[in-house]
Amino acid sequence: MRAVVMRGGRLVVDDVADPTPGPGQVLGRVLACGICGSDLHALTHGDRLAAATREAAGDDPSDPLRPHPMDVTRDVVMGHEFCVEVEAIGDNVGNVAEGDVVVSMPVIGDADGIYPLGYANRYNGGYAERMLLSAPLCLPVPEGLDHRRASLTEPLAVGVHAVHRSRVTPGDAAVVVGCGPGGLAVVAALRMEGVGVVVAADHSARRRELAAHLGATDVVDPREEPAVAAWRRVDGRRPLVLFEAVGVPGMIDAAIRDVPRRSRIAVVGVCMDDDVIRPLVAVGKEVDLAFSLGYDPLEFVTALQAIARGDVDAGALITGSVDLDGVPGAFAALADPDRHAKILVEPGSGASL
Amino acid sequence: MRAVVMRGGRLVVDDVADPTPGPGQVLGRVLACGICGSDLHALTHGDRLAAATREAAGDDPSDPLRPHPMDVTRDVVMGHEFCVEVEAIGDNVGNVAEGDVVVSMPVIGDADGIYPLGYANRYNGGYAERMLLSAPLCLPVPEGLDHRRASLTEPLAVGVHAVHRSRVTPGDAAVVVGCGPGGLAVVAALRMEGVGVVVAADHSARRRELAAHLGATDVVDPREEPAVAAWRRVDGRRPLVLFEAVGVPGMIDAAIRDVPRRSRIAVVGVCMDDDVIRPLVAVGKEVDLAFSLGYDPLEFVTALQAIARGDVDAGALITGSVDLDGVPGAFAALADPDRHAKILVEPGSGASL
Repeated sequence: MRAVVMRGGRLVVDDVADPTPGPGQVLGRVLACGICGSDLHALTHGDRLAAATREAAGDDPSDPLRPHPMDVTRDVVMGHEFCVEVEAIGDNVGNVAEGDVVVSMPVIGDADGIYPLGYANRYNGGYAERMLLSAPLCLPVPEGLDHRRASLTEPLAVGVHAVHRSRVTPGDAAVVVGCGPGGLAVVAALRMEGVGVVVAADHSARRRELAAHLGATDVVDPREEPAVAAWRRVDGRRPLVLFEAVGVPGMIDAAIRDVPRRSRIAVVGVCMDDDVIRPLVAVGKEVDLAFSLGYDPLEFVTALQAIARGDVDAGALITGSVDLDGVPGAFAALADPDRHAKILVEPGSGASL
Repeated sequence: MRAVVMRGGRLVVDDVADPTPGPGQVLGRVLACGICGSDLHALTHGDRLAAATREAAGDDPSDPLRPHPMDVTRDVVMGHEFCVEVEAIGDNVGNVAEGDVVVSMPVIGDADGIYPLGYANRYNGGYAERMLLSAPLCLPVPEGLDHRRASLTEPLAVGVHAVHRSRVTPGDAAVVVGCGPGGLAVVAALRMEGVGVVVAADHSARRRELAAHLGATDVVDPREEPAVAAWRRVDGRRPLVLFEAVGVPGMIDAAIRDVPRRSRIAVVGVCMDDDVIRPLVAVGKEVDLAFSLGYDPLEFVTALQAIARGDVDAGALITGSVDLDGVPGAFAALADPDRHAKILVEPGSGASL
């Protein structure tokens, strides 16, 4: 089958072996798979991402819950925001049938352990014609929900989880710094949570417009007015929770500098570099920092349901679609924040930007 | 009266004006005042401490709760861990009488605002023969509690607050990195909270002994076994809360590196320098960082009661006592962690190290 292979720090469209479902696994035809900012990081800083993943997973190789880290010196097929149609099922699968359209958390297991789909060597992710899923993790896509919006379940779940991690309540105010797909998912999840004041900041007019569409009560260009200053202007009284969704060095310290005493800061942006903070200021303000990654199974279901019910207009995030051959170009196009939010890969669609 | 004045980055024993209590204030004769690690920081890095305090307090000078920042280019009399005998009372004081022995949170107010006692220019702290207190904040020292142990209320309250900020529960495990007075107060507060596993780490044998005396279930020299490794050996199963009580660059990143996924890290040590963290590892582990400073009035009362009831053997922390003339030497002696934990200043006592 055809797949987009990360090889030597580049993306190559190539033929790879067709996967075969083992026990408890299903084979799916990829209908849509979103391109995630983490994939852009992985392409340019794959070694650092793999090293940090190994460090975060712990150093005990006998830990059964420790995912197998990817080896970027070998082929990797990325793509972890997928919706598939089931084409074949392995042994001992009772919950899924051929023809079902499903989404799943991007994790798969076998007798050797656990693998993160999209960041593994043994299993390919969704930038391919077909992929294997773990049957127990498959969720049927509700009637009436198309595969394109369904594929946004994963990135929305990241926002749902970050909002839970932040312990924000409807009576708090939220500031979301950065309105890439991660920040936009946070905005949507804050609206799902009923948070009344949501100030979203981004340099891009297009992204600010999307943030407002998804539920931000106020949007601001931080070059004209800093995000926390905008919150002081429109509210300034409720307890503040700031979501850092940019992920470049200096943003965490800037958040600590800007927020009032006793604020909470949820770090959603993935900063690949070392970063400098001033503990003396953080101590003086007694800030809380909650670093957030991923989601749990219930948060994944919550995201799928919110999209299916129309609570979140996920379709608004989709700004482009490409066939497999268009993936390298789509990675390049995502560098322009004013043109794109989420680009979907739809293998065999013939789509291009 | 005589006082120890911080002047040009040095401590000078000098004569200063006798304070007079204003409305709502009382004049106390200082019976004992502990020397705090923050005072050592303030002496060497006073400008940085003042700048960070100003930044943490916010930039709105009209904010009535914003404390007046100290100006280290002018005289400051430090000392914020005090127990006094009331010698005179100002107008409108109903809750305190001459002869009462009291402790108080180190804050005083007047018509011009709020001042942190010990880090202010207008009001002197406890390294002096006499000082002013805010009458509404004065707490009578319970019968049978001597002034030396009572003066440890403030540092113990810091530990009580850090434990509350960390959201630790009796079913969690705690690791305390650094057993200076701050770390030891955390150990004692963890015991007050009923936390069953408390691993304390320090290079100093004397401090490890104190930690065990105050309630650490295990103590370890981190040069022989890292603190988190010791926790894995003795427990390794309960949710972990790590208290960083050293306060030098690199300790926060080391804590993030060492703890298991989803751990909480309470930062109690005051690191005066910029510090480097790796957000990628923190995100991968989803750690929570809670920066902690000070305490609230109920935590202050809780600390006083715990000492008075004997729940915490505060006296064990006291390793020396000096008269005012001995304060500069005591600051120097505190650099040796194997000799001292808490040194008290007892003006007029004639005591020396």
